[in-house]
Amino acid sequence: MEIERARREYEELRGRNLKLDLTRGKPSSAQLDLSAELLRLPGDDYTAADGTDTRNYGGLQGLPELRSLFSEALQVPPGQLIVGGNSSLAVMHDSIVYCLLGVPVGGERRWTDEERVAFLCPVPGYDRHFALCERFGIELIPVPMTPAGPDMDEVERLAAADPGIKGIWCVPKYSNPDGVSYSAETVARLASMPTAAPDFRIFWDNAYAVHHLTDEPVEIADVLALAAEAGNPDRVFVFGSTSKVTLAGSGVSFFGSSPANVAWFLGFLSKGTIGADKVNQLRHVRFLRDERGLREHMRKHAELIRPKFEAVDRILGKELGGTGLASWSSPAGGYFITFEVPAGCAKEVVRKAAEAGIALTPAGATHPYGDDPADRTIRIAPTFPELDELEVAISGLATCVRLVGAERGLG
Amino acid sequence: MEIERARREYEELRGRNLKLDLTRGKPSSAQLDLSAELLRLPGDDYTAADGTDTRNYGGLQGLPELRSLFSEALQVPPGQLIVGGNSSLAVMHDSIVYCLLGVPVGGERRWTDEERVAFLCPVPGYDRHFALCERFGIELIPVPMTPAGPDMDEVERLAAADPGIKGIWCVPKYSNPDGVSYSAETVARLASMPTAAPDFRIFWDNAYAVHHLTDEPVEIADVLALAAEAGNPDRVFVFGSTSKVTLAGSGVSFFGSSPANVAWFLGFLSKGTIGADKVNQLRHVRFLRDERGLREHMRKHAELIRPKFEAVDRILGKELGGTGLASWSSPAGGYFITFEVPAGCAKEVVRKAAEAGIALTPAGATHPYGDDPADRTIRIAPTFPELDELEVAISGLATCVRLVGAERGLG
Repeated sequence: MEIERARREYEELRGRNLKLDLTRGKPSSAQLDLSAELLRLPGDDYTAADGTDTRNYGGLQGLPELRSLFSEALQVPPGQLIVGGNSSLAVMHDSIVYCLLGVPVGGERRWTDEERVAFLCPVPGYDRHFALCERFGIELIPVPMTPAGPDMDEVERLAAADPGIKGIWCVPKYSNPDGVSYSAETVARLASMPTAAPDFRIFWDNAYAVHHLTDEPVEIADVLALAAEAGNPDRVFVFGSTSKVTLAGSGVSFFGSSPANVAWFLGFLSKGTIGADKVNQLRHVRFLRDERGLREHMRKHAELIRPKFEAVDRILGKELGGTGLASWSSPAGGYFITFEVPAGCAKEVVRKAAEAGIALTPAGATHPYGDDPADRTIRIAPTFPELDELEVAISGLATCVRLVGAERGLG
Repeated sequence: MEIERARREYEELRGRNLKLDLTRGKPSSAQLDLSAELLRLPGDDYTAADGTDTRNYGGLQGLPELRSLFSEALQVPPGQLIVGGNSSLAVMHDSIVYCLLGVPVGGERRWTDEERVAFLCPVPGYDRHFALCERFGIELIPVPMTPAGPDMDEVERLAAADPGIKGIWCVPKYSNPDGVSYSAETVARLASMPTAAPDFRIFWDNAYAVHHLTDEPVEIADVLALAAEAGNPDRVFVFGSTSKVTLAGSGVSFFGSSPANVAWFLGFLSKGTIGADKVNQLRHVRFLRDERGLREHMRKHAELIRPKFEAVDRILGKELGGTGLASWSSPAGGYFITFEVPAGCAKEVVRKAAEAGIALTPAGATHPYGDDPADRTIRIAPTFPELDELEVAISGLATCVRLVGAERGLG
């Protein structure tokens, strides 16, 4: 009988006492090794291109040469980029705080003085975006993702109707977790749509701007330029970081926006710091050198990561293909694979996997308030484990799915 | 005639076309050179004491070995310390933001929901503390400094009477700018005084905890322990940094408080970052090694700085001693000297100095809203210039004071 075989396989899996982790999008040791040179830079020469002693105070906006280096990748002119600390999440945090405690450009009042502040959240999405809003009492409104980005009919309808809707979270390239890249039409509509809130903000978390897995890099439309053309120059906050370019805890982050927003942001920033870590900025310039150096470096990452994404696709195809029990994304970049199981099964699959020693991000984490109403979406993070561990974990995950399917009489 | 001689001297000074800067408390190049080793650390060994790969994500509270290293200096148990990024000002900023947007431990509501939030500001004090509060609409109430710290009669009277008074800024050791260290009695009174606000907070910016200039280091009382003993365990936020220990733009910062406050702070922090730069934390551990290493390192700083403080004292004594036109502090540590001129003269002295190419912090910057009602306090930052430049600048400053004095018929 089908269910007995599924049970037997699962007991066998449990008996192996695995301890495998597919939870977070962390680079592997081998990826971090690619940046080993950073650990002894800058050495004796601590002087920036303009003669600045990077060891001392100052330089609120960040080294111009580093802003130039990332300008193309982030699609922001160097003069409109600010270099932050080691965490782009912290820059997003600060952006929200500044909107809450100061009047945004084009706005009428501080967001804390609004009756209601809500953000549109394309789902599946990134749990840390949602948690950040939740912490500050910002309401989260899910909108569905499509293969071209957020469902723009829905986004346009909501944004136009409700002045309490102040923003939208976007991971426009190789989105977390489904790997979708926004189409040119989606970007143009986001940039130009009417919004009821005069200070509506697109939080454009371009976290995977240069994180291609194939030799055909995805390009997305230039949202800052499109917003300016459409008469909405101050609508977009662009975020980026080198956390998955160089070292995950010790990279640099970026904020980019219109000249007015950059001045607004710097106005707050100047009260809260004398400047970010310029020695680390210089390290990054010396190590990556230029745009070509950045591309070469990311190619090495792709060589390490691609086999892992391919393994997930291959094993899932072999073990679950044609069963009707699962579907999954095959992204051309980024850090995640979305894994969909039949409605009502995700929590149980994650629970069974955990019992078998395979840690997955909690089911529901891809949705606001941790609540996936269909209970079907699971996020797989394949980069951190070694390839052989990953293969065992994915095969084990398939075992869990088959058991849940059999228990529910599915497939 | 006295005034003609003073004018002649001043014109001579202007004719020298100086370009000297006594504005900010920046370490000199020679001081930064003391930490040259940091620029090639950690090298190949990027593993923390507990086996953590410092290059990857995680570690919200910071490396335990770094917290241990600074525990004694900051008078905070390692378990109650959090390591932040490169700026303690940013940690103070975040602390205020968390109080504004979340209910502080022991408080009744978010500070944004209070009718009024005010901070006591001992004057002269640090302009960046004041600017930070001002940016967020927090009212600033000056209280005078005494040779033992803030005027505690006044502080106790105000804090007990007014529930809108939510905090006080303190630089307890070698205070910015007058070099005063708080007496044991002052610390005990701050820790134990009744406050009308249940969530009153002491912002204890121990910026110069180990920055001694003499061989007799000043010790201050343990404010965290005293507050806990007095039944006010959550009253104190301790801040510190290595900005003036290692590299001014590339050090590490600290937050320390009660266990409840640390949990509260981490609760916010976890939404805004995955953790601070652990490679830089490891760099600091490898470089400073232990408490003895820290003390030895600070002794080298003192050797470079002390001659500058001595020169200021010597030149001011020679040029202005006995004239009745000025008095100044002779601190045993820290980064600043307070220079007092006759009432109503500070702005004019700073203006004349600027015209002669000697940049000073704006008169009034040591007071809330940039307003020194007596217009007499000037802050001198002697560390950054080379010794010979400093001597020229201080002598020039004396020239300006003599001219202003003569013009006003003083001295």
